[in-house]
Amino acid sequence: IINRENVKDMKEEADIGIAGLAVIGANLALNFESKGYTVALYNRTAERLDDFMEGPGKGTKIHTTGSIPEFLGFLKRPRKILVAIRAGRAVDDFINTIRPHLEPGDIIMDAGNSYFKDTMRRMDDLLKDGIRFVGLGVSGGEEGALHGPSIMAGCSERAWEHVKDMLTDISAKVGPDQEPCCAWLGAGGAGHFVKMIHNGIEYADMQMIAEVYAFMRDILRMSPDEMSDVFANWSKGGELSSYLITITSEILKKKDPVTGKYLVDVILDSAGQKGTGKWTSEAAFDLGVAAPTIAEAVFARIISSLKDERMEAYAQLPGVETERRTDRSAFLSKLRNTLIASKICAYAQGFALITAASKEFGWKLDPARIAEIWRGGCIIRASFLDEIVNAYRADPKLENILLAPYFKNRIGIANNDWREVLAKAICNGVAVPATSSTLAYYDSYRTARLPANVIQALRDYFGAHMFERVDKPRGEFFHAQWSDSGMKITSADFNV
Amino acid sequence: IINRENVKDMKEEADIGIAGLAVIGANLALNFESKGYTVALYNRTAERLDDFMEGPGKGTKIHTTGSIPEFLGFLKRPRKILVAIRAGRAVDDFINTIRPHLEPGDIIMDAGNSYFKDTMRRMDDLLKDGIRFVGLGVSGGEEGALHGPSIMAGCSERAWEHVKDMLTDISAKVGPDQEPCCAWLGAGGAGHFVKMIHNGIEYADMQMIAEVYAFMRDILRMSPDEMSDVFANWSKGGELSSYLITITSEILKKKDPVTGKYLVDVILDSAGQKGTGKWTSEAAFDLGVAAPTIAEAVFARIISSLKDERMEAYAQLPGVETERRTDRSAFLSKLRNTLIASKICAYAQGFALITAASKEFGWKLDPARIAEIWRGGCIIRASFLDEIVNAYRADPKLENILLAPYFKNRIGIANNDWREVLAKAICNGVAVPATSSTLAYYDSYRTARLPANVIQALRDYFGAHMFERVDKPRGEFFHAQWSDSGMKITSADFNV
Repeated sequence: IINRENVKDMKEEADIGIAGLAVIGANLALNFESKGYTVALYNRTAERLDDFMEGPGKGTKIHTTGSIPEFLGFLKRPRKILVAIRAGRAVDDFINTIRPHLEPGDIIMDAGNSYFKDTMRRMDDLLKDGIRFVGLGVSGGEEGALHGPSIMAGCSERAWEHVKDMLTDISAKVGPDQEPCCAWLGAGGAGHFVKMIHNGIEYADMQMIAEVYAFMRDILRMSPDEMSDVFANWSKGGELSSYLITITSEILKKKDPVTGKYLVDVILDSAGQKGTGKWTSEAAFDLGVAAPTIAEAVFARIISSLKDERMEAYAQLPGVETERRTDRSAFLSKLRNTLIASKICAYAQGFALITAASKEFGWKLDPARIAEIWRGGCIIRASFLDEIVNAYRADPKLENILLAPYFKNRIGIANNDWREVLAKAICNGVAVPATSSTLAYYDSYRTARLPANVIQALRDYFGAHMFERVDKPRGEFFHAQWSDSGMKITSADFNV
Repeated sequence: IINRENVKDMKEEADIGIAGLAVIGANLALNFESKGYTVALYNRTAERLDDFMEGPGKGTKIHTTGSIPEFLGFLKRPRKILVAIRAGRAVDDFINTIRPHLEPGDIIMDAGNSYFKDTMRRMDDLLKDGIRFVGLGVSGGEEGALHGPSIMAGCSERAWEHVKDMLTDISAKVGPDQEPCCAWLGAGGAGHFVKMIHNGIEYADMQMIAEVYAFMRDILRMSPDEMSDVFANWSKGGELSSYLITITSEILKKKDPVTGKYLVDVILDSAGQKGTGKWTSEAAFDLGVAAPTIAEAVFARIISSLKDERMEAYAQLPGVETERRTDRSAFLSKLRNTLIASKICAYAQGFALITAASKEFGWKLDPARIAEIWRGGCIIRASFLDEIVNAYRADPKLENILLAPYFKNRIGIANNDWREVLAKAICNGVAVPATSSTLAYYDSYRTARLPANVIQALRDYFGAHMFERVDKPRGEFFHAQWSDSGMKITSADFNV
């Protein structure tokens, strides 16, 4: 092992430099090394480097460096620097620190969950010095970083040529042909945008699982062990077979070493967040795409975090008595259908966002390819994604996955169960914000005549916002004299 | 009437200048004149000024001007200029146009729906020249502008002293004591923020009314005339007595002069929007406040606007058969309770946003005063607001109006009907995104033990995000060894 004592003599040895040795950076380093790459490490505090070098699992091709010049001097040219530090100002600070030492052609890869517009800004700015920037969506958590993450790249195609092979090597592989879960998705912020959507879908997935768990716990009165068996069963095959369902099963059977209780029963019901769900929701509003389930999942976490206020509300607010169901097995099959139908609607929202952003930013994103590289390595990996791949391969211009034969058929099968489970949750006081939003999304989307005519009539009444007519072409706007005050409308461009 | 021919000789005659002669500016001018104020008008295109002067309703105290210097020269000092132009860049352009002609102490009032952060920026910028800026939330549409709007002001207290009397004079008055619906709410963007929340609540109110209409139309199979009678009845007194319910009743009975059909049946079910609902939702995410019903209302408008795509979905996607109910009167009473409970939850979200923003921006907003000035003039005016005033007067530190005695009691009465109506809508395929989000909000808020423990367990499993324990103090975080891979956690600060 070459360490900080002798590295000063080494020059341009390393295939890649990794800055930031939190768990993801550390695991990516081990992953690169395991694929035969020589890695130089840099971290702002030396202690973490030392801890890492004393830890297990390393070969001889990982080298720590003690300063930025040493770190950069150690890299083959053009330098490839993977930044694994917390998204936000720290990324700008780090870029500013290394920038004076870089040369045209060098490549910085930001592997954090950076906001895609920050990535676009950084890319444009660095290009002024000829430095290439890659916005690298990396999903899979610690395990993924170590054994193979899903990698979503946004950058120029020329920059991609330089890093494509090494990123493909460390990425997750799926299927009998070991297809890599790594792709160049488009220019600019494409990679980080798609990673953001991945996380938004993950918020929805987790909230929907939590709501199913609440139904099992509070209405079916199941123990964590019993629930674990159900999730284990669901994870074995079929539409729900996925990483999140698998680990839900594992989580539910885990015992707390301190109390001997089920660990899940000891964990506070207060969920944190780091912002990607919020960003996805904001992108939905900006792009004019309906993504209610993702928004509801974010709001559900917010409400969960108000634990003290909720305990006060619990003591004061009227609820309903929750019935105790004995026909468990019938309901478990209905719950499974509910989760499948909800999941389809949540993914429909996520992919609609991808389609809209692709148009808005000129990225030419390929939704099938995105679904493909989400099949391995990442948190939302699931057999279900194969069907999304199929849907977009069959019709690359598909407006919404709900319109693909497989999904509309599958929802048709789940249709009645989905409604029955929701009605049951509602009548029993079990909060189901995400799941009920998926059904409302579905029913809104498939309804020929929504009640929005009333909204538009109201808007025209009080604000002269005009309306279209069912018997006239779209784009022709009308205003009615609703009241008898006879006010003359001179303009409709003032918002009320 | 003094017009553009002879106004050049007039100097410092006018109490107020109004820039922008769209319907709101025009009606505000008439309103100011009716209260005895002399008004100078300016509009970018002279034609509109001429049209306005040829129209009815004016006395002798409204004067048009043909240029910015003429307009400004006509105003008493310090000049008071009310800007009634479309929010956005046009406001900046206009400010930049008049700025060179202004003097320290002059006051610009922006009466448009400007984004509150734009208002904060403009205020800070103009202060450099000693020019005072007032972010003026004005609600009430055309009618309100003419007969008395609700006015929400954000500015320095010294600026307020100069405009307080004239704005109070033109504002709506309510109650036996003719209390003016006009208040200084705080510094900076406070006025426009509160107006934005007003509009966000308005989105929710209208969507919830539309969903009740859909239930009446599609399940109770009522004609517009029959529905109109119900809304008229609801508007006559009690918790739903409000402007929006009243005009819904009027809208439903209106006949289309062209076809003779009910006009509401001829209006396309595609609702537009101008951004304030979207801003409110984004503010909710930024402030970390749950406002799902407002977000759902915005998304519902987005889905409604996809008319062609929806018609395709309607042809393809499986729905459910909608039953035909004959027990109308029982259901109408349940629908009324549903709308009341939903409305309480939507307002709870809006007022929680006001409370959070007040803390965040240091505005010291008084929620009771806000509810008070919304009782007249504005679109969401309703007798219901009296109860919000009472709730905050009784407990100025109230965390959520759901915890106020009146509201928790009222929801208790509505509780079962609300759930039954929702279950019925869900099982009959009537889309109820906003109404179901209100119940989910309520149930989430009043639930002692949400399923967020599972979410936090999952986040700790794949991302080492840590969790709190029910048997340890808040703020102490733990990480579990979930799997057998034995990975050492070195940090939890990397987002997955």
